[in-house]
Amino acid sequence: MSNICSCPATERSRLAPAPIAKILRQALAEPGLIDAEDSAALFHDLSFMAERCRAAQRAFPENALHTLAIKANPLVPALRRAAHLGMGMEAASLVELHLALAAGVAPSRIVFDSPVKTEAELALALEKGVHINADSLEELARIARLRQARASESVVGLRVNPQIGIGVIAQTSVAGGDSKFGAPVNEQRAAIIAAFESYPWLSALHVHIGSQGCKLPLLVSGVSAVFALAQEINRRWAAPRIRVFDVGGGLPVAYRDDETPPTVAEYAQALRRAMPELFTPSWRLITEFGRFIQANAGWVASRIEYVKAGAQPTLVAHVGADLFLRRCYRPEDWHHDLFLTDGAGRIKTGPTRRYTVAGPLCFAGDVLARQLALPEAQPGDFLIIRDAGAYTLSMWSRYNSRQIPKVIGYDGDGFTLLRRRESLTELAAFWGA
Amino acid sequence: MSNICSCPATERSRLAPAPIAKILRQALAEPGLIDAEDSAALFHDLSFMAERCRAAQRAFPENALHTLAIKANPLVPALRRAAHLGMGMEAASLVELHLALAAGVAPSRIVFDSPVKTEAELALALEKGVHINADSLEELARIARLRQARASESVVGLRVNPQIGIGVIAQTSVAGGDSKFGAPVNEQRAAIIAAFESYPWLSALHVHIGSQGCKLPLLVSGVSAVFALAQEINRRWAAPRIRVFDVGGGLPVAYRDDETPPTVAEYAQALRRAMPELFTPSWRLITEFGRFIQANAGWVASRIEYVKAGAQPTLVAHVGADLFLRRCYRPEDWHHDLFLTDGAGRIKTGPTRRYTVAGPLCFAGDVLARQLALPEAQPGDFLIIRDAGAYTLSMWSRYNSRQIPKVIGYDGDGFTLLRRRESLTELAAFWGA
Repeated sequence: MSNICSCPATERSRLAPAPIAKILRQALAEPGLIDAEDSAALFHDLSFMAERCRAAQRAFPENALHTLAIKANPLVPALRRAAHLGMGMEAASLVELHLALAAGVAPSRIVFDSPVKTEAELALALEKGVHINADSLEELARIARLRQARASESVVGLRVNPQIGIGVIAQTSVAGGDSKFGAPVNEQRAAIIAAFESYPWLSALHVHIGSQGCKLPLLVSGVSAVFALAQEINRRWAAPRIRVFDVGGGLPVAYRDDETPPTVAEYAQALRRAMPELFTPSWRLITEFGRFIQANAGWVASRIEYVKAGAQPTLVAHVGADLFLRRCYRPEDWHHDLFLTDGAGRIKTGPTRRYTVAGPLCFAGDVLARQLALPEAQPGDFLIIRDAGAYTLSMWSRYNSRQIPKVIGYDGDGFTLLRRRESLTELAAFWGA
Repeated sequence: MSNICSCPATERSRLAPAPIAKILRQALAEPGLIDAEDSAALFHDLSFMAERCRAAQRAFPENALHTLAIKANPLVPALRRAAHLGMGMEAASLVELHLALAAGVAPSRIVFDSPVKTEAELALALEKGVHINADSLEELARIARLRQARASESVVGLRVNPQIGIGVIAQTSVAGGDSKFGAPVNEQRAAIIAAFESYPWLSALHVHIGSQGCKLPLLVSGVSAVFALAQEINRRWAAPRIRVFDVGGGLPVAYRDDETPPTVAEYAQALRRAMPELFTPSWRLITEFGRFIQANAGWVASRIEYVKAGAQPTLVAHVGADLFLRRCYRPEDWHHDLFLTDGAGRIKTGPTRRYTVAGPLCFAGDVLARQLALPEAQPGDFLIIRDAGAYTLSMWSRYNSRQIPKVIGYDGDGFTLLRRRESLTELAAFWGA
């Protein structure tokens, strides 16, 4: 088949409607790829994802460890692709740790973050030698007990909450005064320093501010506060104790054309300007990008099943709060641009009218958009939902037990199935039939 | 084992802490039931569920068809139990239709509701002879086309939106002026009546107002409005056209001790008072209770993994926005009472302090309660979350790919496993490893 990656590979902040529609037409023409039962399908541009990985790698020092936050999109074939590009993985649960290993990532390149690590999980992580970020002093004490029973090559760090304030989306901002995450620096500064006295194996700090909704100055000031603590701790010893510094989260992405989030190069430059020492070879910097790598790489095509007449005409689509949980439950915080193609994948134009765009689920909040101007729609058209590559499928909600659509990856080599459409048999087994 | 159903079987609006803790202690003592990996478990009181089914059956005429809304809790072993008690099933998706059949329910006792039924789904439903509620006039036209190709024993109804206003929870109120559901009666009254002229097989109406957050007068006035339409339509023919009337949704339940929702008997009485004719043998009434049957029957026990110190001490539990999606995403709308037991299942008492109760997931909104007064907590204690039997597991969100805990049913005959704990292998396969 022809090369299907039609976008220029540089500085693409979002996949535009025209190249998306072109891929849709190519997918519809590909024998056996999309069948009558595929009322919706997810697409993931693997070249775009790879370009984002490379952009991160270019922006930071060569010895930095870039881990991909699995929670953004845990599809193992995509993780494997990222691993081939030299990405490590960030795992926020025991299962994510296993997914990272299944993707072929070396344990020393896996960062294990979770606020609720059990003793068994910590023991496994220590045994495998993965990097562990403790979420609290309480967890550090537990790790200390476990280390008495076993040697381990794990690098162990502590997550510190700089308590510098939150971004515009409270639910994804993690550096507020009362965040559930990390050791709060205001209340526990002395205890954090004392932990380095007590635990000679403690050698890293971790900070995470949030991503979407957080502006660059907020991100930089939070990271700087914890880096200053790291330097302060290092000054207490003849040889520096902390040489690994994990900057989690970070980079917002554009969900609208008029949004201009910083590029990863600008983000790295802002960090470098505030903390030049962090960018010297004596530090190993870790990143944990997820949204930045995945969000803009994915999009969804759903058939319009019905166009309901009424004072407020309604388009009924095959994805809703199952796939777009945050959009439907917190529409004030989360947005996706939508557009329509006809059944053959040609972008619709012409006079618009205002539609409600509803999902398939039996609850009133299952609505993707209200009062949205779209060209005249017909059943069989495709609704395209942009920037759907992160925190969508990974949060899939089982409500109404609908089958998860297939996920189609693509790049210059053509299409590849990243996930089969879920079967009725799998769903019946899921519910214990 | 001893009889483990310790609550009186009548007028129990909620399971109280003492009997819950007693069941937990019995479960902990049961060999092989709860193991070290069970950081959390769901419990479902099958006797309670059965009593709710029987209460509905007692409150309505004998010829009523009571369907259990699968979406509230799709566990097939529990559905099977309800089916043995004479419950039909309400299916809101193709998969739920298959779950109803897997639970052994006769097709004529299954109601198929979904706003997005495809042609293939409608063809299957017509072939099986399940009751179909069309969501719109557009869907009725599609059913008409499909019926030309095949005979069917399906009863077909139309969902009508009475547009009478919404309850206090917008996201679960479905009878507002611009709801995505049903044919809107204000704009389409004439067209609805005309549909009965066009389609001789159309013989039922369906109305659904909402449940939680909707007061009895709102519920009754919405149902009455659509029943008046049914009577008006019937008067146009010598022999009544509509003999099946489906009253979806309905009954709020108590999530707090000071809430006093109507009993099902009071609800039925209010409907009977407003519409005496609906309760005569010439009508077949259908109900679609879900929350009322399941919500108060279920509860969750999670180990407290960490007690994090700080100005705002935080308990970290093993369930959060994965299981309690609505609570965490719309805390202003949804509530669960919580209490603590020690590691042996004894209810904790004594001086309290204010805790944040956090879930296991890597996002800031994953919080079950803030500033909640609880007795002094320790790691290894159990956090009990009450009234968790509906719209919890059924909405499970995959975020962070955590394993779904096991679900333990119980009644006078002892414990039964309704669902195994999910395995690492299943999760790896889920993400395409």
